[in-house]
Amino acid sequence: MLKLFQYNWQVRNDWFDWCEPVSMEELMKKRTGGIGYILPTLYHIIAVEYGWICGTIQGKPIHIPSFGEVTGLRQMKQLSERCHAELAPFVYNWNDSLEDRIVIDITDEGEHVPHKCGEVMRHVLAHEIHHIGQLSIWSREMGRKPVTANLIGRGLYEI
Amino acid sequence: MLKLFQYNWQVRNDWFDWCEPVSMEELMKKRTGGIGYILPTLYHIIAVEYGWICGTIQGKPIHIPSFGEVTGLRQMKQLSERCHAELAPFVYNWNDSLEDRIVIDITDEGEHVPHKCGEVMRHVLAHEIHHIGQLSIWSREMGRKPVTANLIGRGLYEI
Repeated sequence: MLKLFQYNWQVRNDWFDWCEPVSMEELMKKRTGGIGYILPTLYHIIAVEYGWICGTIQGKPIHIPSFGEVTGLRQMKQLSERCHAELAPFVYNWNDSLEDRIVIDITDEGEHVPHKCGEVMRHVLAHEIHHIGQLSIWSREMGRKPVTANLIGRGLYEI
Repeated sequence: MLKLFQYNWQVRNDWFDWCEPVSMEELMKKRTGGIGYILPTLYHIIAVEYGWICGTIQGKPIHIPSFGEVTGLRQMKQLSERCHAELAPFVYNWNDSLEDRIVIDITDEGEHVPHKCGEVMRHVLAHEIHHIGQLSIWSREMGRKPVTANLIGRGLYEI
């Protein structure tokens, strides 16, 4: 479980680096599909991971600022780091006994939906990779090389 | 490990269903980013999963027809099913003792590169999800709703 999260966190930081030379106008330009904008996609990835792992799974009080409150790329990186610091201990301490623990998601409609913890964790993993795939298309539309999606070659495993 | 593969296989089949009413012209239209075309993206996903799991990891003799030999959507689905039938037993029999087994990848340049088996498996998982994210953008460009990327709600877990 941990390795795929580490992959996502590394790729996300690579995308923050990718954003550095890009103008705010480009980061906030309306695009087709997905969340529709580059910076809000990164915000969405951060908020979804944090909401599920700290809020739904661990039942902690969570505070996620609205997108409008996050005023720039630097602030988005800080939000990512703050959420990461809060949720990472749970991921590092993951063990198989947590797989079938039932957690309750309260939907926007107020419905209480039970999920297994293992399902939520994998949902979060796939969610980030999917949205990153979308960023890679928008990157090529801008004529820029996207961050590599390769998991191999990132130093996640030692031989 | 298995659940994320099952997710990928289910999503891939949903994309085959998504392709059904789409003309071959659209499936083979040049698009920006990724592999650059819808049907070759599905071919690429199939070939990469099969090549790593049956070829590199298990060292079996593998035969993947060239893209040109796969003449339509139905044939692509058949290729996916054939490769799936060959590689699925390994995924179903996965256990943690395989994590650190060293497998050798022979690159196109003839270089022998060792990898841990767990790294290869996660590489394959992330690879498919990433390319599916790209398909979702192209789908919206065509004005069509993409296959949902949600892992939750697919019946992969029972409560």
